[in-house]
Amino acid sequence: MSLTNATPQEAARAARKSSRALAVLPAADRDRALTAVHRALADARDDILRANLRDLEAAMRAAEAGTLSQSLLKRLDLGREGKYEDMLQGVLDVRDLPDPIGVIGARTLLDDDLVLERKSCPIGVLLVIFEARPEVIANISALAIKSGNAAILKGGKESTESFKAIAAAVSRALAATAVPSDCLQLVTTRDAVGPLLELDRDIDLVIPRGGNELVRKVKASTQIPVLGHADGLCSVYLKADCDPAAAARLVVDAKLSYPAACNAAETLLVDEDALGTVLPPIAAVLLERGVSLRCDEAAKATLGATLDAHRAAILQDADEADFRTEFLGPTLAVKTVPRAATPEAATDTAVAHINEHGSHHTDAIVTASRACAERFLAGVDSASVFWNASTRIADGQRYGLGAEVGISTNKIHARGPVGLEGLTIYKWLLRGAGHVSADYGAGGKKWKHRRLPVGDDERYARTDEELDVLRAFRARANGV
Amino acid sequence: MSLTNATPQEAARAARKSSRALAVLPAADRDRALTAVHRALADARDDILRANLRDLEAAMRAAEAGTLSQSLLKRLDLGREGKYEDMLQGVLDVRDLPDPIGVIGARTLLDDDLVLERKSCPIGVLLVIFEARPEVIANISALAIKSGNAAILKGGKESTESFKAIAAAVSRALAATAVPSDCLQLVTTRDAVGPLLELDRDIDLVIPRGGNELVRKVKASTQIPVLGHADGLCSVYLKADCDPAAAARLVVDAKLSYPAACNAAETLLVDEDALGTVLPPIAAVLLERGVSLRCDEAAKATLGATLDAHRAAILQDADEADFRTEFLGPTLAVKTVPRAATPEAATDTAVAHINEHGSHHTDAIVTASRACAERFLAGVDSASVFWNASTRIADGQRYGLGAEVGISTNKIHARGPVGLEGLTIYKWLLRGAGHVSADYGAGGKKWKHRRLPVGDDERYARTDEELDVLRAFRARANGV
Repeated sequence: MSLTNATPQEAARAARKSSRALAVLPAADRDRALTAVHRALADARDDILRANLRDLEAAMRAAEAGTLSQSLLKRLDLGREGKYEDMLQGVLDVRDLPDPIGVIGARTLLDDDLVLERKSCPIGVLLVIFEARPEVIANISALAIKSGNAAILKGGKESTESFKAIAAAVSRALAATAVPSDCLQLVTTRDAVGPLLELDRDIDLVIPRGGNELVRKVKASTQIPVLGHADGLCSVYLKADCDPAAAARLVVDAKLSYPAACNAAETLLVDEDALGTVLPPIAAVLLERGVSLRCDEAAKATLGATLDAHRAAILQDADEADFRTEFLGPTLAVKTVPRAATPEAATDTAVAHINEHGSHHTDAIVTASRACAERFLAGVDSASVFWNASTRIADGQRYGLGAEVGISTNKIHARGPVGLEGLTIYKWLLRGAGHVSADYGAGGKKWKHRRLPVGDDERYARTDEELDVLRAFRARANGV
Repeated sequence: MSLTNATPQEAARAARKSSRALAVLPAADRDRALTAVHRALADARDDILRANLRDLEAAMRAAEAGTLSQSLLKRLDLGREGKYEDMLQGVLDVRDLPDPIGVIGARTLLDDDLVLERKSCPIGVLLVIFEARPEVIANISALAIKSGNAAILKGGKESTESFKAIAAAVSRALAATAVPSDCLQLVTTRDAVGPLLELDRDIDLVIPRGGNELVRKVKASTQIPVLGHADGLCSVYLKADCDPAAAARLVVDAKLSYPAACNAAETLLVDEDALGTVLPPIAAVLLERGVSLRCDEAAKATLGATLDAHRAAILQDADEADFRTEFLGPTLAVKTVPRAATPEAATDTAVAHINEHGSHHTDAIVTASRACAERFLAGVDSASVFWNASTRIADGQRYGLGAEVGISTNKIHARGPVGLEGLTIYKWLLRGAGHVSADYGAGGKKWKHRRLPVGDDERYARTDEELDVLRAFRARANGV
């Protein structure tokens, strides 16, 4: 990892140049580099934690001066129980994922001796901008190396000392491997973000990891594609036919298991017929747990008449803005879905509300009706759409992606929780024997366009068990 | 198709709104709409050609006044032999492609009764900006409807009358189908492009179809993702070991079969050892065919000594800028790749030149050496990389994609020739039974993450023949 005081332009050039070498390294070389990084981070533990301590001291002073929030303070501490071990284990976890590079996505015989392949490859150079959490640098470095991408890392200034110490360890580790150290560029100079975001010739993808303000700012100031999401305005829609107990557990989880998360619920949509049946016990629990309920008129009237006087008194009025607000805390907007001719028609109303007001991140319906659920799943234009499951499950680890690069609300490339695959693209490889275009077309030869099998192998294994058997056999057969 | 004098904002809002309805239409409805569009365009042939004639008259006047180029003039004529029939057939060809929507890309059992699916869906709203060619509007409309996307169409002003007539026919056709007419918005007001490019809330993807100036301008003025390529600076690299006759045919095809195409060759890289052997006959043919050869010093010296005096006299000197220029005409820059320790090392030099000077579109190596070829295929960071095949083969139709949306040099989403799949994204659907996140993790339940088969069907069919048998059987079995 380069630690020189490079300008943003120099860092990007160096990253681009070394990305060419990294892109053609076999998986074994990239994996070996991750093993070395893991060992180096384990060996340098004391140094890194001592550097982290310097960040903590500075942060404490800033907190006392009122320029740093309490929650940020907590996230800075790399020595908190289990955190360093998690960081170390994360490197090995990424290493042990299947190689996302070199995967043949399609193979076509265009003509005799003319075979076209679509093969996955690294994107090139990533710019990762992240906030204070110091362990992110190890995670991002591992993801970049595994996927064959160079990365420019720009971290929050509160973790500068930790970043430098981690970078020094990573740099030492890479020096003895086939992965060029220049593949990871740590930029610590102030005000580097603006210039970096202009380098669209040398940077292929920007990944902001942090709060929505960071993401929004990045998106507004670059022409480089940005992978991420600015907002997480998620909704849960309760149908009158849903199981009240299950609905209550689900809403509590969606709202309260981690209210600051992007996949936490911010709006509760409730069928008019459910206001007096399903909603009151849920509202009681939420109020008990300190949640402010901002209700539209119908919801407030019915809840007010159903709940005890103490609870009814603390219900709040929602205005239109509440249904466009990501509270990121213990507040929930409650919206009534008016009775309609059919349950499906009411569902359409809820879908329209979500598509118009939400952030296209994650939305859920709670219902016993498969017809309404499928209508909701098809109609809601969000990255993740759930039936009878908490929005909080929208997460790369929970989806089984192995590693999470981030959650995207983009409509192209990668959507929802993004795994390593999101750091790849493909290229088309064509191997011929002197074929020229003029031989084909009107009066000439015809393209064959015959689909060929991809890889030698695994398409007929339809389940994990079958795949395990197949891979075990092949490993034995190949003497691995 | 909306023909009202909508503002860009109104057009985008209407497109977004109707895109929701289009996104959930079954394939049969979209296909029926395309059948109707085809019939309407066939029926309205005379009206449309009469409207086109008005464009031709205006264009002729503009050409006489010197404000319109001859090549543009030719492209405007929709009545040229076969052109209208091609346009009609194109609609049916798109209709008959497999449905790109609703394809399950992955299915995972997260836990009992909790199944995650990744399902393809339309992107949403496309903005397609195209130059004069009037038939493009029919092609784009068909691609949009087939892929379930709404589209805002902004065509060159030279074809306004043709566009309006085609749009009127499409509009009449859609009125009697399940596809909302608002899904296609024709914007004919002047200066609409600027405001449209700012509507990143209602437009998901911009597709500029036209010259590199148009594409560059669009890319520089929007935060919406742009699918396309500004430049096509393609190279052909001749190794000393290549077959001279095959190399000559290939270079002639790459340079001359359509010099204005984005996949035509602009730079010829030649091994130093090939300057006096492989290159002279190729240079002779190219000069004969009117190609200007801009040679670096070594190439010019060797060619000058080998070719006859007349030919040698018309060789030109290349400067550095020539190796960064897309000539789009009968000029070719010739660059010598210096002799190196091994053929592979020389190949690396050529790869580095291409990565630094090219436009990452399509590049080819001509060689008998598999080792050098594979090094080139792996190392060149371009959308298409060829061995012993002409760069002109980089094309959606030639690749067998069925339809071409455009050619992309983006590093995310879609790269190279883009088919219908490039107009889709996916969403994650999760169907549960009240599952909540808090039940999992430390001390709680474990995620199962068990891969399930996708679809009921076709993974074990490895070739087209097998797939045909399978599909024919299933069609019979289902009484289709």
